[in-house]
Amino acid sequence: MKERILTGDRITGKLHLGHYVGSLKNRVELQDQYETYLLLADVQALTTHFDKPDLIQQNLRQVALDYLSAGIDPDRATIFVQSLIPEIAELTVYFSMFVTVNSLRHNPTIKAEAKERKFDDMYYGFLGYPVSQTADITFCKATLVPVGEDQLPHIEQSRKIVRRFNQLYHTNVLLEPKPLVGEIPRLIGLDGNQKMSKSLDNAIHLDSTPDEVSEKIKRAKTDPSRIHATDIGHPDICPIYAYHQAFRKEESDEIYESCKKGQIGCKECKRRIINGINDMLDPMRDRRITYENNPKRLDEILMSGTQKTRLLAKETMQEVREAMSMNYF
Amino acid sequence: MKERILTGDRITGKLHLGHYVGSLKNRVELQDQYETYLLLADVQALTTHFDKPDLIQQNLRQVALDYLSAGIDPDRATIFVQSLIPEIAELTVYFSMFVTVNSLRHNPTIKAEAKERKFDDMYYGFLGYPVSQTADITFCKATLVPVGEDQLPHIEQSRKIVRRFNQLYHTNVLLEPKPLVGEIPRLIGLDGNQKMSKSLDNAIHLDSTPDEVSEKIKRAKTDPSRIHATDIGHPDICPIYAYHQAFRKEESDEIYESCKKGQIGCKECKRRIINGINDMLDPMRDRRITYENNPKRLDEILMSGTQKTRLLAKETMQEVREAMSMNYF
Repeated sequence: MKERILTGDRITGKLHLGHYVGSLKNRVELQDQYETYLLLADVQALTTHFDKPDLIQQNLRQVALDYLSAGIDPDRATIFVQSLIPEIAELTVYFSMFVTVNSLRHNPTIKAEAKERKFDDMYYGFLGYPVSQTADITFCKATLVPVGEDQLPHIEQSRKIVRRFNQLYHTNVLLEPKPLVGEIPRLIGLDGNQKMSKSLDNAIHLDSTPDEVSEKIKRAKTDPSRIHATDIGHPDICPIYAYHQAFRKEESDEIYESCKKGQIGCKECKRRIINGINDMLDPMRDRRITYENNPKRLDEILMSGTQKTRLLAKETMQEVREAMSMNYF
Repeated sequence: MKERILTGDRITGKLHLGHYVGSLKNRVELQDQYETYLLLADVQALTTHFDKPDLIQQNLRQVALDYLSAGIDPDRATIFVQSLIPEIAELTVYFSMFVTVNSLRHNPTIKAEAKERKFDDMYYGFLGYPVSQTADITFCKATLVPVGEDQLPHIEQSRKIVRRFNQLYHTNVLLEPKPLVGEIPRLIGLDGNQKMSKSLDNAIHLDSTPDEVSEKIKRAKTDPSRIHATDIGHPDICPIYAYHQAFRKEESDEIYESCKKGQIGCKECKRRIINGINDMLDPMRDRRITYENNPKRLDEILMSGTQKTRLLAKETMQEVREAMSMNYF
């Protein structure tokens, strides 16, 4: 039996190369090894985007297309819509009864994110993120969650909630998840910012056309000290070199040396990575077009994935209700 | 069209005379005037009793029997089980996205209850009580909630949440509830404590036998300064006089005067109220026996009430999803 993985994205925008490098590529590899459940987290998107519901609606299918075009196989991985699994909300409410406010306030991820978003007063749902994430993981009995180091406190809190639930109700219905810690590489933005991010407008989206890639790379920041193609370069601070490392690993050492010695100009270097990125995106574009031309098939994938997941959710909820002596009739 | 009322009880124990005087009697009267939804709040019972699930299970049918025996008519009022309406959990989660932690912390009812229960660290679900209460009220589109003065801050917070929701999503799907403020009389306990309460073990339950009533009243506290039947009494501090006021109003002035003048002894005074309480409970006992002898009928009432309520919940949720642009398929 394969172990089950729960992973996914908050639907706050379509995905870009940063997502691909950071998690999506890894998920495509994991789907062979594990039974994969992929969460389109529209409800959790509301924790920061409750005032932008249209954005969530517009991007739900886009993110699903991003998954499929990147190589997620709907016959192996189950893609589902969070808001269509009410059992997640039910479990969130049940868990919230025995999780203290202070344990949430002291969660390092919550603290860091609240600081980043400059919240001096947090929304109640935002504070409860670790609780609802525990519901996400446990309702489908996932035992593994692929995470970066910064997400470890969330998983640790989930493990605590599960242990507490099982101890309170003398059961072993819920499974304690383990983190599948991997390197979650961050991709530098086109503007040189440490993080490629839609909100910083420094991203190349997975649905970009070849021309869009070309345009964006041409306008991307490079080593500012290079004026002439023969100037000595500093690849370590150059986004373009970072992209060579990420997408054309095999040539990246050569690029590094040539740049340092002033043997390759930025224009040529950019030309090569434009080709490199487009070569990588081409098969994704082919798969995307197939689904875009068959929107019914896309909806079927989402609906059948959600339906399958719902059955699992109902089973778990039935067991939870029995454990909690709430099976009245 | 009758206005719709939402009311109910957290299932933390069977009901007693304090509940009857404080709310149940009033509900029986209201069911003619309003379309009444009666919530058996098993989920909210968990906010304080998450570690006592068996107690909730044992008392769910007891409280339903208390309702029916007190005169709630299942053909006029709809009795339903909270945990079987997952839409309440869903709405709770949606509302939690835009309600701030501080607005909950500063809710006077939450503050007072946390103090009373000596919580220095609150449970997350306890803090969210006003949010889940708003879900209770709005999912069934109740516009009136019978409350005492102390519950007004909860209703005010519900009104705010509804206004915010409707404003955020440019809708009028949710209805702003109004409090139906009535005097919520408190009944003094058998031990003289200001509040009759199960946890203080100073209560007469609605399912008491005549002998149990008699025993409890005989052991009840009276004016401690009265040794002999002819001693001058202080009815204002005597639980028994309070019971006369509550249950034998018509004779209570006479009792007051006689007690003050030392013309009636405690024994005789108690004898009369034992009869008074039993006279009041007798028709309740008859109704209770009917349902106890027909547990299938009781379950039918709970199941059909819950089913009817669920349909309403699904309709509201459909409207909510549309308003929030979450009707994807």
